Amino acid sequence: MTSSRFESGIQFMKNFKLTIEYDGATFKGWQRQGQGERTVQGELEKTLAKIFKSDHVTTVASGRTDSGVHALGQVVHVKADTRMKAGDLFSALNAWLPKDIAVSHVKEVSLDFHAQYSVKNKTYRYLILNREYPSVWMRERSLFYPHQVNVTLMRKAAKVLVGKHDFKSLQAFDVLRAEKNTVRTIKSCVIKKDQDWLSVEVTADGFLYKMVRNIVGVLLAAGRGQMTAQDIQDLLKKKDRNQAPNTAPAHGLTLVKVIYKNN
Amino acid sequence: MTSSRFESGIQFMKNFKLTIEYDGATFKGWQRQGQGERTVQGELEKTLAKIFKSDHVTTVASGRTDSGVHALGQVVHVKADTRMKAGDLFSALNAWLPKDIAVSHVKEVSLDFHAQYSVKNKTYRYLILNREYPSVWMRERSLFYPHQVNVTLMRKAAKVLVGKHDFKSLQAFDVLRAEKNTVRTIKSCVIKKDQDWLSVEVTADGFLYKMVRNIVGVLLAAGRGQMTAQDIQDLLKKKDRNQAPNTAPAHGLTLVKVIYKNN
Repeated sequence: MTSSRFESGIQFMKNFKLTIEYDGATFKGWQRQGQGERTVQGELEKTLAKIFKSDHVTTVASGRTDSGVHALGQVVHVKADTRMKAGDLFSALNAWLPKDIAVSHVKEVSLDFHAQYSVKNKTYRYLILNREYPSVWMRERSLFYPHQVNVTLMRKAAKVLVGKHDFKSLQAFDVLRAEKNTVRTIKSCVIKKDQDWLSVEVTADGFLYKMVRNIVGVLLAAGRGQMTAQDIQDLLKKKDRNQAPNTAPAHGLTLVKVIYKNN
Repeated sequence: MTSSRFESGIQFMKNFKLTIEYDGATFKGWQRQGQGERTVQGELEKTLAKIFKSDHVTTVASGRTDSGVHALGQVVHVKADTRMKAGDLFSALNAWLPKDIAVSHVKEVSLDFHAQYSVKNKTYRYLILNREYPSVWMRERSLFYPHQVNVTLMRKAAKVLVGKHDFKSLQAFDVLRAEKNTVRTIKSCVIKKDQDWLSVEVTADGFLYKMVRNIVGVLLAAGRGQMTAQDIQDLLKKKDRNQAPNTAPAHGLTLVKVIYKNN
């Protein structure tokens, strides 16, 4: 009981909160996988293990992102027995990470901070290029959508989705990832237009699997006059994914912000 | 002399002005080269030959761009013996071109329009990311420059460059591409700051080889306090490239606009 803090082996245990960006186009999603699949978690943990001179480092993200989905504000926590300061970890990571991952912020947080369980809200942005010809720069970061859409109708549809609803109709088909509780609260769903670009920014206390991409499918159908606000209300009531329009593709989606209860 | 216009063989000769975008990261520059080098001109001519069902099609651009340099408004002319209308050529090109080239505009112009000789002004933009960590999305489209720069000093330096000057000191070392007449007129040199992004937009009646990238080198040196406005005036007077700071790398540079005397 009188052993030194050094002997206890946890003297320098720290918890770091990392805010990271990554290019979804070049990864098979967030989650570490078997050999041969390049994932964000895999690359990040490899680099952290080098920096901490450790055999293995485990990171926890606010949630996984699918193959093709980007992040400008993914949040990760990592615990390490180190004397390293947040500023040095920031520099080391940006020096050592591959070019398709960058760290925008590193902060030392209390040991009980958990990147997934402490989430209060998350914001995703879906980017749509609405003109006659594609973009060479943004082709992997936006949906090229050359059809005419009515933004006023899209905004009306978005209003129906805001609030606490059962989003079962907008959950992915994937039964393995189906959740029992499909009630979520959408805090805001804002559609911005800037020349040929449309962005849909959705903030919620949580998202079902592929929920944002299904929401975008609904909003585009509304924008083309294929679904009215009433149709969307009915769709939510039916709690049946088969009634919903197509899922928008992954490459237009970006996790932009994660807000926590504390920190 | 009374042969029909059909027999003359030039009945349908048309001249098309194409405005195109391309991603410099994936090409060995504009100019068609030998086997194995993928160039914008090579890919564009291949696609046009398919569309016009011709063995070979020759395009003429406003000027070549180097390997790594992007375009959002490169202009090209192509002559073809075709009944095709501009709108159909626009659709066919965007359907058939590889994903790193897009066509934003097609117009039928008079046969004497020449994409290179008819140029009045050209505008290039150089994009700089001025923060502590790189961007995963824009890494191939901007210079990551984590050093502190003073934008006011950069703007003062830019003012010195505007006007009619002998830019011999800001020409590339490359003797093969050195020009005898090194006098050019810079119409404007505007530096914009938007959060962490700096853009340098230069409009001139013509540019020497690597001139914009050398200008950016000078402006960054000025921004860091390494060169005063007086130093830049002296540099121009010396007409000696050896006195100039480093050339900024190609991947931050984009040809954004070409203005013509007519059309």
